[in-house]
Amino acid sequence: MLRRLTPGAGDANALPMLDLRPVGYVIGLLVAMLGLTMLLPMLVDLATGDEHWSVFLECAILTFLTGGFVALSCQTAKGKGLTIQQTFLLTTGVWLTLPLFGALPFLLGDTEARFVDAFFEAMSGLTTTGSTVFAGLETMPKGLLLWRGLLQWLGGIGIIVVAMVFLPELRVGGMQIFRSEGFDTFGKILPRATEISSRISVIYLALTMMCALAYILTGMNAFDATVHAMTTIATGGFANYDASFGAFSGGTEYVAVVFMLLAALPFVRFVQLTAGSAKPLFADSQIRAFFMTAAAIVALIGAWQFFIVGVQTEAGFRKVLFNSVSILTGTGYASADYMLWGSFPVAILFFTGLIGGCAGSTACSIKVFRYQLLFASIRVQLMKIQQPRGVFTPRYQGRRVDEDVLNSVMSFFVFFTVTLGVLAVLLGMTGLDFTTALSGAAAALANIGPGLGDTIGPSGNFADINDAAKWLLSAGMLIGRLELLAVYAILTTQFWRS
Amino acid sequence: MLRRLTPGAGDANALPMLDLRPVGYVIGLLVAMLGLTMLLPMLVDLATGDEHWSVFLECAILTFLTGGFVALSCQTAKGKGLTIQQTFLLTTGVWLTLPLFGALPFLLGDTEARFVDAFFEAMSGLTTTGSTVFAGLETMPKGLLLWRGLLQWLGGIGIIVVAMVFLPELRVGGMQIFRSEGFDTFGKILPRATEISSRISVIYLALTMMCALAYILTGMNAFDATVHAMTTIATGGFANYDASFGAFSGGTEYVAVVFMLLAALPFVRFVQLTAGSAKPLFADSQIRAFFMTAAAIVALIGAWQFFIVGVQTEAGFRKVLFNSVSILTGTGYASADYMLWGSFPVAILFFTGLIGGCAGSTACSIKVFRYQLLFASIRVQLMKIQQPRGVFTPRYQGRRVDEDVLNSVMSFFVFFTVTLGVLAVLLGMTGLDFTTALSGAAAALANIGPGLGDTIGPSGNFADINDAAKWLLSAGMLIGRLELLAVYAILTTQFWRS
Ligand SMILES: [K+]
Ligand SMILES: [K+]
Repeated sequence: MLRRLTPGAGDANALPMLDLRPVGYVIGLLVAMLGLTMLLPMLVDLATGDEHWSVFLECAILTFLTGGFVALSCQTAKGKGLTIQQTFLLTTGVWLTLPLFGALPFLLGDTEARFVDAFFEAMSGLTTTGSTVFAGLETMPKGLLLWRGLLQWLGGIGIIVVAMVFLPELRVGGMQIFRSEGFDTFGKILPRATEISSRISVIYLALTMMCALAYILTGMNAFDATVHAMTTIATGGFANYDASFGAFSGGTEYVAVVFMLLAALPFVRFVQLTAGSAKPLFADSQIRAFFMTAAAIVALIGAWQFFIVGVQTEAGFRKVLFNSVSILTGTGYASADYMLWGSFPVAILFFTGLIGGCAGSTACSIKVFRYQLLFASIRVQLMKIQQPRGVFTPRYQGRRVDEDVLNSVMSFFVFFTVTLGVLAVLLGMTGLDFTTALSGAAAALANIGPGLGDTIGPSGNFADINDAAKWLLSAGMLIGRLELLAVYAILTTQFWRS
Repeated sequence: MLRRLTPGAGDANALPMLDLRPVGYVIGLLVAMLGLTMLLPMLVDLATGDEHWSVFLECAILTFLTGGFVALSCQTAKGKGLTIQQTFLLTTGVWLTLPLFGALPFLLGDTEARFVDAFFEAMSGLTTTGSTVFAGLETMPKGLLLWRGLLQWLGGIGIIVVAMVFLPELRVGGMQIFRSEGFDTFGKILPRATEISSRISVIYLALTMMCALAYILTGMNAFDATVHAMTTIATGGFANYDASFGAFSGGTEYVAVVFMLLAALPFVRFVQLTAGSAKPLFADSQIRAFFMTAAAIVALIGAWQFFIVGVQTEAGFRKVLFNSVSILTGTGYASADYMLWGSFPVAILFFTGLIGGCAGSTACSIKVFRYQLLFASIRVQLMKIQQPRGVFTPRYQGRRVDEDVLNSVMSFFVFFTVTLGVLAVLLGMTGLDFTTALSGAAAALANIGPGLGDTIGPSGNFADINDAAKWLLSAGMLIGRLELLAVYAILTTQFWRS
């Protein structure tokens, strides 16, 4: 009580305050890097003789200078370790700040987007969601199309680093199960993030180039191949055409399936693979469960199409395979309007989106390892019910699972479900019908992209929904991408007190 | 291995086999009692001069004799204690067997229902779900209407006993938190169930009579008042009119609101109240949370109707109050077609149905205490995330919550959600559209009754959906009513091995 009444209590020197400089320094650097990246679409516009290039130059200068200025002004904190609070703020801060600058080209460029649309598109990009507010993509300057691809590509690698380094340390959503041993000081989180980033970058770039090459070999032009390779490996789903992947077919679809699946695997396994060790890749039960899930979904929808609907062609199977994998991995490309396939595929695809890929990949949603842990825990529950005095422990990858991890995963599941419900209700409040609201909430929170129904379904886009809904969906993308608790923790009063 | 090959292994004497006689004895007795209950609608049909009475006599004799015969043939097991396996089998067995006999009057009576319809209606009755396959209720013999009411009324008191005695002992879905101390032997479960039943019966009957009286005072005729009082206190929701509660209005609706809310409270509090102790009623945090939830939902939908839609009459508020409480308590009466209220009420009512009433009442769904425990656990998670070395324990009603209870509740939530998803997908497979499939799955699993959409929504019924969907929904009602794990435990191989 006394301290509150002391006049100097508001003074930074009187109370230990949260030092925002280390956070500002990293965010500033990342913003500056985003500014530099804007020079790539500028070059493309220059190469295609599009006057639009000047927009990117302007945005690049603005972004680079702002980021550089912030980084410089926080430079005194360089090299300092991060506290747990700072790490939380950094994670959410990055995904709140970068979209603001990523939106600039949409605001100032040919799209002449309003702020809400530009922000939505940039957030949708950096969170690798892939919902788009733009129609008429065919006539968009190539630079802007590349920019959309780049946003997702950068968001994709960013999230792998967050999932491999930040979330395990923050003990968010059970990600502590992927915590590497002998490393538990927040002080070392930034050097480690830098080290992981550079190691992952090589693999990420290599996968993207392989994907682009395969796209070219199956008929895409070089530009489309580059952009789509970026949004494939990011499981982002932005396409260069309003028809999404409907613009391509045959071999291209199979190529996309292979790389969407690869992009949904834990990237640490690729690191190990390039280091000569293939065993972890094949021993990973999450990967096995993921492929089994994919196979089951394709089989179920495939059987429906084959036996009930009577589509018995190779093209029919390909559409099932492509669109199922696209939803499961949270990529969100559509090569057919699966709303027309009937009640069963629609229902199963809705829930498929709530499964997702593996942890440590670019895929989002609840993720396979959480279902594995949840089912392991339920199995133990069922055994306990029948033998109340028995002692059972759930296991994952052959090891006993810590109670703390299980609680974390279950809290995540509850939080995800409740957030989904609240978001759907709020979207309903803005006037969206039930199917659009519920599937839109799921598409944003699980970073899938397209929802169900005529408006935001595979054949639609997010252009015509109201502004309030766009803000809500943007928030949903952010919350979902950062595994909910990383964002919610900041909203607690306790966070700011300690 | 050797034992399997031994010729005598199939012999009951060679291996300790599950003794089904105690289960058969109790189920037989209950079936016989159900047979006796059929004499009530017979009397009503006799009194109204309806020839239909003979159907009930026939059904009564058939049911009473079958039940009596089974009970007699298992009589040797009378007075024996139940093992945990037998208790599981008894719980599920009761709710599988009684609907078979409860369906007889629909099969043989004026409704001339097919087996699937009759079973669906009886299961919907005994699980207090209230979905109906019958249209033209106004022309149905009074005896059959009373039978529908009786099924729900019996199901209601049955489930209170199960929730108070069986589930806590079976440690299902966190119900062990309501386990009374000094009582943990399965041997005593039947005497205790009998004791609780008789104590609860008085209160249950008194509440029903008070409700019926209040209905009469606000304008219902004696017959409607009796049947609706039964389905109100059972939070069942069967009505005597196709328009459900749309046939009544004004004071009757307010009366229904009061009794629906009462029926969703833990009945143990009423027992304590009649014993002269009102304190537990007011000290129960579950009850407080339940009323706060109800108030919040009514306020939200009321504000929408008042400010956005512009319905500013008493009748408008009454419809909001009545239908919100009806869904929250899982009663499922409709006094207005809330599908027409717009996107927000529809979305919020869908999720309201997934909340439900208090444990130990006739209400179903996930229930308030589970959300309280889940949120307590999530709060602890958020604190742990910020102070990884801190020790926090979730509390409920002022007491520390056992890790075992938390795990149980979380498993329940996961199981409920996954079952909801699987059921919706299966319903989609039978051809129901997305909204009908998803809301139908929720309406069955949470024992609400009506779903969303034109077919099974508040203005529709379940007559025209396909047979496969009817079987699936019947299974959903059973699984949901018995809190999932009580049914799933039986489906594990381990159950039959031990
Ligand atoms: K996506
Ligand atoms: K009901």
